[in-house]
Formats: sequence, C-alpha cells, structure tokens
Amino acid sequence: MNKLRPQCFYLSIYLSVYLSIYLSIYLYIYAMSPKITVELLRQLRQVMKNSKYITEPIQAYIVPSGDAHQSEYIAPCDCRREFICGFNGSAGTAIVTEQHAALWTDGRYFLQASQQMDNNWTLMKMGLKETPSQEDWLISVLPENSKVGVDPWIIAADQWKNMSKALSSAGHSLVAVQDNLIDVIWEDRPARPSTKLITLGLKHTGLTWQDKVTALRGKMAERKISWFVVTALDEIAWLFNLRGSDIEYNPVFFAYAIIGMSNIKLFVDRKRLMEPVVREHLELDSPSKPELTIQCFPYESVYMELQAVCAALAPKEKMWICDKASCALTQVIPKAHRSAIPYTPLCLAKAVKNPTEIQGMKMAHIKDAVALCELFAWLEKEIPKGTVTEISVADKAEELRSQQKDFVGLSFPTISSVGPNGAIIHYMPLPETNRTLSLNEIYLIDSGAQYLDGTTDVTRTVHFGTPTDYEKECFTYVLKGHIAVSAAVFPNGTKGHLLDSFARAALWDSGLDYLHGTGHGVGCFLNVHEGPCGISYKTFADEPLEAGMIVSDEPGYYEDGSFGIRIENVVLVIPAKTKYNYRNRGSLTFEPLTLVPIQLKMINTDLLTQKERDWVNDYHKKCRETIGAELERQGRKEALDWLIRETQPIV
Amino acid sequence: MNKLRPQCFYLSIYLSVYLSIYLSIYLYIYAMSPKITVELLRQLRQVMKNSKYITEPIQAYIVPSGDAHQSEYIAPCDCRREFICGFNGSAGTAIVTEQHAALWTDGRYFLQASQQMDNNWTLMKMGLKETPSQEDWLISVLPENSKVGVDPWIIAADQWKNMSKALSSAGHSLVAVQDNLIDVIWEDRPARPSTKLITLGLKHTGLTWQDKVTALRGKMAERKISWFVVTALDEIAWLFNLRGSDIEYNPVFFAYAIIGMSNIKLFVDRKRLMEPVVREHLELDSPSKPELTIQCFPYESVYMELQAVCAALAPKEKMWICDKASCALTQVIPKAHRSAIPYTPLCLAKAVKNPTEIQGMKMAHIKDAVALCELFAWLEKEIPKGTVTEISVADKAEELRSQQKDFVGLSFPTISSVGPNGAIIHYMPLPETNRTLSLNEIYLIDSGAQYLDGTTDVTRTVHFGTPTDYEKECFTYVLKGHIAVSAAVFPNGTKGHLLDSFARAALWDSGLDYLHGTGHGVGCFLNVHEGPCGISYKTFADEPLEAGMIVSDEPGYYEDGSFGIRIENVVLVIPAKTKYNYRNRGSLTFEPLTLVPIQLKMINTDLLTQKERDWVNDYHKKCRETIGAELERQGRKEALDWLIRETQPIV
Repeated sequence: MNKLRPQCFYLSIYLSVYLSIYLSIYLYIYAMSPKITVELLRQLRQVMKNSKYITEPIQAYIVPSGDAHQSEYIAPCDCRREFICGFNGSAGTAIVTEQHAALWTDGRYFLQASQQMDNNWTLMKMGLKETPSQEDWLISVLPENSKVGVDPWIIAADQWKNMSKALSSAGHSLVAVQDNLIDVIWEDRPARPSTKLITLGLKHTGLTWQDKVTALRGKMAERKISWFVVTALDEIAWLFNLRGSDIEYNPVFFAYAIIGMSNIKLFVDRKRLMEPVVREHLELDSPSKPELTIQCFPYESVYMELQAVCAALAPKEKMWICDKASCALTQVIPKAHRSAIPYTPLCLAKAVKNPTEIQGMKMAHIKDAVALCELFAWLEKEIPKGTVTEISVADKAEELRSQQKDFVGLSFPTISSVGPNGAIIHYMPLPETNRTLSLNEIYLIDSGAQYLDGTTDVTRTVHFGTPTDYEKECFTYVLKGHIAVSAAVFPNGTKGHLLDSFARAALWDSGLDYLHGTGHGVGCFLNVHEGPCGISYKTFADEPLEAGMIVSDEPGYYEDGSFGIRIENVVLVIPAKTKYNYRNRGSLTFEPLTLVPIQLKMINTDLLTQKERDWVNDYHKKCRETIGAELERQGRKEALDWLIRETQPIV
Repeated sequence: MNKLRPQCFYLSIYLSVYLSIYLSIYLYIYAMSPKITVELLRQLRQVMKNSKYITEPIQAYIVPSGDAHQSEYIAPCDCRREFICGFNGSAGTAIVTEQHAALWTDGRYFLQASQQMDNNWTLMKMGLKETPSQEDWLISVLPENSKVGVDPWIIAADQWKNMSKALSSAGHSLVAVQDNLIDVIWEDRPARPSTKLITLGLKHTGLTWQDKVTALRGKMAERKISWFVVTALDEIAWLFNLRGSDIEYNPVFFAYAIIGMSNIKLFVDRKRLMEPVVREHLELDSPSKPELTIQCFPYESVYMELQAVCAALAPKEKMWICDKASCALTQVIPKAHRSAIPYTPLCLAKAVKNPTEIQGMKMAHIKDAVALCELFAWLEKEIPKGTVTEISVADKAEELRSQQKDFVGLSFPTISSVGPNGAIIHYMPLPETNRTLSLNEIYLIDSGAQYLDGTTDVTRTVHFGTPTDYEKECFTYVLKGHIAVSAAVFPNGTKGHLLDSFARAALWDSGLDYLHGTGHGVGCFLNVHEGPCGISYKTFADEPLEAGMIVSDEPGYYEDGSFGIRIENVVLVIPAKTKYNYRNRGSLTFEPLTLVPIQLKMINTDLLTQKERDWVNDYHKKCRETIGAELERQGRKEALDWLIRETQPIV
C-alpha cells in the first residue's frame, strides 16, 4: 500500500510535420521552475560587442546543442545551450540577438522548454507551419549587414554551409567566433572530463589497434586517400581499443585522431597517457614499427596540427573527413584536398562485429539475462508488499547487473514505467512521477548495461496480476511484429529500413501503430546507439545489413494514459540457410542475443500462427538452456525456478 | 508445331552499383548492324565551329535523351541521340568532342549499344567502377578553357547545374546552344507531331478544366505563388481535359501552359485549335469569365512569353516550376522569383482520382478483362494447333481490345513471352525472337490499353499444359507477395515504398527475389506510368498513398533461361475498416480494379494460408460476378464458360 502517491504530470503531443513522415512526440513534464536569464543575457550581449573576444561586434549569436564530436550524449561542460536558456532537452538551438532570445526545439520538448525558460525567451516550435526557420527569423529581425556569430567547433560543416548561404543571400554574414562566448560568461563551468583510460586486449577486441590501423589504411589506399581525420569519439575508442568514462553511459573519451599512411596522430589530454598500462598498450615508448608509431598531442592542438598536415599535402592528395564533423576542422582542409563522407570506414568496420566481439556480446547478454531473471523473480515476491516503485526497480536492476563479472555501468538511463507512464516513450522515473508497481498495471522496463565484453539493451513488458484481453491483444500484435523482424529472411545487401514494415503489419491490420523506429545499431562495449545500420521507416541513408552487425528489434504500442508495450531484443545479423539462392546473393536473418523470457501471460496465443508459436517455444528453449546453465553455475536458485516456470512451451 | 524456330539471343547482366541498391539488368539483343556515323560526326563537328549556329566554337556537344518535357516515351522527332549514334535504348547520353565520341548508358543496354554503334563511338558503361562520369571524362579529354555546348531545352535544370559546376571547377564552361545542332544536320528529321485533339467532357473527367484551374489557383494562393509554368505533357492534358496522340501509347500533345491568378496561357500548335469542338471546349470564342479566358500562343513562343511575364513580376512574386523542367525555361525565371518543386500540385491532383475517374477506370478494366477472358479462351483452343506465336497473341489481344467500347489504343508495347523469353523483364517479341506457344512452357503476357474512360495494365502468367512443381512453387510465392500488398492495411500517410517488402517476403524466405519495383502510379486515360506514388524499394521520394490513388501491384520471379512469372493487377487505394483507429489517423487498403482470373493450375495451394485462399476465392468470385455479367451482356459465350471454369473456388 502506498500512502503518498507522487503527482505525475505528463503530456502527449502529436506533431505532424509538413512533407515529413509522421512523427511522434511524447513529453512528460514534472513541476519545474524556469531559469532566470536576465543577467546572463545581459552579459552575453556585452561580450557580443567586446573586442577582446571578437574583432567586430556581432548582432546575433547561435548556441547549438552538442559537442565538438557531434555526440548524442554530452558532458556537463558542453551543455551550453542549457546554461544560457535553462532548457535541458536533447535537441534545441538558442539564438540571442541584441533585442531577442529564441530557442528552436521540436514537439517532444514544447512543454518542457516552455516550463524551463523564463520570459526573456521566445519558444520557436519547430514543425509548425507558422514557425520561421532560424535563417528566416534572423533575416526578419536583424538590421542590415549584420554579423551572426557561432562557435565553429559545435556546428557541423553542412549546417554551417546552409546557414551561411541563407544569411549571405540577405546581405548578412555568418562569422566563426573562436572563443565560445557562453564559456566566457559561464563562471563555474565544469572542467572537460579526463577520466582514466581502460585498455582492452585481444581477448575483448579480437583485433589489435595496429591491425585496425592497417586495415583502415588498406581502405584509404583503395580510394587513394592519404589522410583521415577521425572526430567521432566512439570511432577513436574502437580504433585504439581504449575506453574512458568522460560521458555518462558512453565509454568514450575526448580525443581526435589524424591517420596518415605512415603517421598516427592522437590528440588527447596528455595526463591520460601517463599510466604505464596505457603507454604500453599504445607502444608509446617502444613502437614495434615506424608506421605504427603514435605521435601524441594535446587535445586542443588538433586544429594547428591539422593545418600543418594540410600545408604539407602534395597537389593531388585527398583527406577524408565525415560530413558530420565540425565546421572548424572541416574548413581547415582546403576544398581541393577534402573528401567529405557520410559514413567513415571506421563507422562501417565497427558496425560489423568480429568473432571475438560477437562472443563478448553473447557473454554480456547472458550475464544481463541472469540479472533480469533475478530481478523478475524478486519482483514477483516483492510487488504484493506494495513497496516496489519504478525507481526502486531501476536501482535493483542496476544492483543485480553490477554483481555480474566485468560490469562497468549502465548503457543508458533505465526506463522503468508503470501503467500510464509506460506510454511515455522516453520516460525516466523521477521522484515526482514515481509510481508503485502493483498487480493491476502493466510494467515496462527498458534497460541495459556496459560490460567489458559488451553492451546490452533489453525491454520487457510484464503484468504481475491479470492483464485485460485488450492489453493481451495489443501485446500479441507487438510480439508478432517482433517475431516478423527477428525471423525475417532477406537477401544480402538489404537495408534495414526495408524490414521496418514487417514489425508493424500485425498492428496496422488492426488500425494500430507506434511512432518510433524499430531498431538501432548497438556498439560492443561502446555506445548503445550507433550507425550506420538500423531498422526504421525514417533511415533511408542506412547502410545495408551484413552478417556480424548487431541491431535492436523493438516494436511497441502505446496507449496514452493507460499503458505502454515494447518488446526489445538485441539481435545479431547472421547468414540464413534458404532452399534456393537467387543469383548467389546469399541470405541473412537474425539471431537473438537477448535471452530473457517474454511473458506468456501477456500473449493471446490464439492470435499466433503455428510458425510464431514455434518461434516463441524455440526462443524460450534457448533462454532456458543458455541462461539456465549460467544461473545454475552462479547458484541463483530462485531465478532458475522462475526461468523454468516462464519458459514452458505453448501448446 | 513450329518448323522454323527463330534465333534468340539474350543476355542478363547483373550490375552492382557502388553505394546503391541492387539493380537488375536484363537485355535481349537480336542481330543488328551498327549505324555508320563517320559522315554525321564530321558534319556535327563542323557545325560545332560554325558561327551561323554558335557565337564561339564549342569543343564538345552533349546530346541527352529525352524531349523538352522530360517525357518517358518520346516522339520520333526527339530521338536525336539515336540519330547521332545509332543506339535506340530508352536511356543514354552522347557526347561528341573534336576527337572523341562517347555514349553513356546503363547495364540494361551495354550489349545493345555496342551492337548498334560503329567504332567511332566509345561505350561508357555506367555503374562500373572504371567508367568515368561525363564530367570527369570531359575534363580529362578537353583542352584548357573549353566550351561544352548543350541544348538547354532537353537538359533538366538540375542536371545543367551539376554539369556546369563540375566544368567550371576545371576551368571550362557549359554553354547553352539555342539551335539544336543535331537538328541542323538531320536532313530528314520527322516533323513534330500535331495530331487531332480529343476533348473530354464531365462524363469522363468529373471536373471541368475551369474547376481544375480554380482548384490549382487555390493551391497557388495557399503558398503565395502567383504563376505556375506547366511543362509535363500529361499535366497539361489532364488540366485542360484534352488528349492527343503525339507520342505513341501516351495520349498527350505537345504544349506548355503558364497559369497565373487571372491568366491562362496555352502554348500549342494553333492549327489544333481550329476545330470548333476544341474552340468550344476551351471557350476560346466566348469565355464565361475573364479569369478563365485562355490566351493561345504558338508552341514555340513559350520562351518569349515567359520572359514577358517575368519582366512584369512584382518584387515579391513567386513562380512555380517543376525541378525536372528544362534548363531553358527554368532559367528564364529570375532566381528571386523561382520556386522549384519536386512534384507540382497538378501531379498530385491528377494522382488522386475523382469519383468519375474511378468509375471510368473500373469500366475500362471490365472491358479489358472481357478482352483477356476471350483471349485466354481462344488460346486454349488454338495452342494445340502449334500456330500461335508471341506476336500473334499480342496482335489477337489488341484486336479483342479494339472491339471494346471507346478503345483508343494500347497503353504500352505488349510483352508477350514464352518460356525463357519471359525472364527478360522488358521483352517485346520481334520476328527474330518470336517463339511459339506450347503446352510445355510458361506464357507471360503484360499488356494494357487506353480507353476514353481509363488506362489498363495487367500481367498474367499461365501454363497451357502441366507446370512443374518448381514452377508452381515460384508462382505461388509471387502470388503470396501479390496478395500481401493487395490485402495490406496501413495507416493514412504511409508512403508506398514501405509496402514493397511485403511483396517479397515469401520469395525472400526461400532465397528468391525479383530485381524491379513492385508498382507504379497509373493515369486515367493518360500515361500508364505516372508519379508521384509507387511501391518500390527505390522510391524514397514518393508521396504518401491516399484514397483515390491508383497503382499497380506486380511482383515477379525470373529464372534466367527458363521462365518468367509476374502477377499484376491495377489497384485502387481505398479507406480500410479496422478494429481500432490509432490517433484517428484512419487506415487504407487496396481494391483490385483488374478482374482477370489468376490461373489456379499454377498455384500450389498447400503453400497458401487460409487467409490467402480466402483472398483468391473472393477475388475470383468478384471476377466471375462482374466480368461474367459483362460477358453475358456482350454475348461472349465461350469466354464466359472459360471464366466460370477458371474461377472455381479453392477448397
């Protein structure tokens, strides 16, 4: 029994974007007070005219989200947009002029932004017809011949190009301001993290960094590329078989690299390279081969060093840089030498896991399943007591995972949601919204961890009492979609987005749907979201699926105000055996790495085909065998009993 | 029995294109001798330096495929690329320099082009790594500061832009040559057709042209557009409720239109407007309203008139033009006034058929089915005699269709193919390849017609003896794919490309596939291929499906050297009734307009689910009822018997 039920506010907004695919936006907002920004804006407007920081006064300053590496998650020192306006959502751009301050964000965040910002700020609701683009708005409010400043490190090259073009056409100009003006006024700005580096051996990586550099150079030679500027943090971590913890949930560290055919230049806080184990790993003191010698430079010197490399380029030499890299670094490379690419060869190489990585991912998922079996067995016992809350389950899940070998941390904030909270797709329990688990409501938990051998991400939706027929019906449609993707057989060379509709067909048949993609790439002891593959109606720029790639399969259904359902496994792309083999292309299918039972109580088995029933039974058999053996080994008897009970075959 | 079996050469080439979706290329080539081009090239190179046609000599001349309206099918007078090099495939660009002559085409046409061109020409095989782009090749062969000429009327605006940019970056320039230099040397060039215009009344169109102009102006007002330049021939035909026969199979006529908020300017050979019925239809002599007065101009004067309109534009006025329009017309519009759009509002309006058009399409498909039932009944009788050939079936099909009311002509060249010829996707029987139908081989016929009330396009694959188990298996997978699309239920707003994988799933499961899209938009007594909707893994720029749109559903399977299978219906997008209605979006599904039995003999019913069996039975019931009634009305007894026999329910 819970005496004090915390208040929960939430809102769901459906936003239809002109000429765009339907887009879902859910928000949950707890009571929050706006940040007072009068003084901050006054200070910012002062530095916008201060010749100490800029040669000529600027009439507007753009503050994008994001860091210099275009990371999805960012470190506190990079939360500049939040600092200036108060809004802390994951997407949004602030622009401050002499008279105005405006923030652009999308429908997920309309309410949150309006609550977090004071009335010095105008909220620009992206996607609504009446909302001007940043360019159009600037042109409408700026005096003639204005200068608009931006930090070239945190704006991507292509965004710079578009903005610059639009402003020029109206007689203004976009100006790169080298000193970040937010940093200038941010007194207690946190320092850039510089956590201890972890070195990974062959046991975890399957390939030495030397092998990876050599393979990369092979790709460069194939395309007659002599240099490659690496800016994405997970690519650098993967290449050098190093990990850090500079950004929460993402085991990466701040660094750049410039790889030449006979040079390796690594830019990282030099203190981090003092550790003997790191020095040895990188062969800093005794390189085995001259072309595998790593030259170390301070993180900040990448700009100057890249300039030096570019100055020494022969006339026809070409340099790769990702088109999502910062404007600052991109523009250092003269156009004639620059080859901007949508995906780097490291991004592609990292996506296709090698046998050691696959084995590691399998081990990580076995350990993760052990923790979850224990969690569910514990929940069955504890829930009737009425003391288990969304937050306490999340904490318990973390505790159980942390008991597993080589646990490093969570891979993203746990989504632990009861009843209506489950319908908020990006829900994270907070004291103000925390609900108690009961026998009457559906419970959804989407969670994952980082282990030295791999990264996990799993969602299960369960009911501890008796689900309604409607809840079971919806769950079964979602399950049919999950199976349709997991069991799909498709030709080599197929892109993931071509599989997205398989996940929806059963829901569509009944007039239902979910407004998010079906799957994302998953790193190996790296970011839980990674490119360049995925399964979504939106990603038309995804790369073809290949054996060894790892993605999530996570269809769902969300009934606003009532419940949320999602069934997520991480799956490995494997070759499929087929009766025929058209044009010798070969076929692919998926193997689930996640081995956690899918609650039978939630399934209306009448709605399943025989094939689907067989799939569930085979899956549960595998869960029982693989996880059962590990539970036995670890002596976790209660969880084993629970597993055996939950994996009875459907007849 | 056939004594003389004509020789048949064919080739299939699989071309994998870097960073592109897999692409299928089939070719069939009969003995052909190359066109002798020595003298033609000499003449062309002379006019490239002749100041009568160009102000300064040009060092290269580009001859694209296509006409000034970017038509898929073109008139003989526009076959300039074929004239200069001999190659008559549907895609290819010729470039002639002082020293070289080269033709770029894709893998479908490598063999054909190499056989049709003499050795003055170099074949540039597009899609192969070693093949340079046109731009790169020009840069490599041209002397410094060269001028490259092209007729700006037959190059699309965006193609011009790319070519011009690439040439400029290497110090050359792209030059618009107003006189087409091929026309200068083409002595017996056919005249531009100027066929009699057909006027369509409300009975066929559902909307007067005046209503259509008014609706168009509504769209223009919504977007603050004051003028719209219409260049696509089917858009002009649809807008004015007129048809012509200037291009084979496509009932269109050469014209342009410029629509203002109070002006309608029509550019067409004035002779065509002499007919009283046309004058009356267009209200040329007594316009009902001033803003619906059509001003007529000669076809050729569109350029000057557009210049005049542009000269009179107010500062903020905007003009729509499709981004696929010619460079010549596009560049007349000053950039500040130009709004280039990927699909015009006419293209979208034309795609969503009104109730009258839907009724007309249904009628056309009933008549078409009558002709096909007669054809198949006739074939069953005639084939054992051994005298029926691919060509004679095509002729018979045309004869039977032509007996139906309001028949105008075919909607594309009939694909009539026996056995291995069926595996050549774009096969068209020629005397040299003509095979005799027998009881031993699969027969595929893909054909369609233009009627005053609608356009048809239907493929059936049949066997007149006993198909092998393998043939039946493949046919059944194709049928499962056909049904999966036809019976699909999907939310309003879904784009057709999201349905493409449904058509392939059954084939994929067995390791099979087909290398073409699944469906295209179909016009109403207009082009058999039309945008902006379709069902293909390739079309990511398609517009969402809407109730009233009409597309084809035509999965297939092709076994090189053995047989081809395709099952094609034209289907209408209709609202679907679903159990639930998520976010009140509503759902859609398809209703087949094509009502021709699918041969039961070819189906392995064990491979069908109960739902699929029900679909086949329901479909055949509808064929029997609807077409049976019409066959009875027309007194076509033999065909009726055949229909009844072929529509027995599967038990």
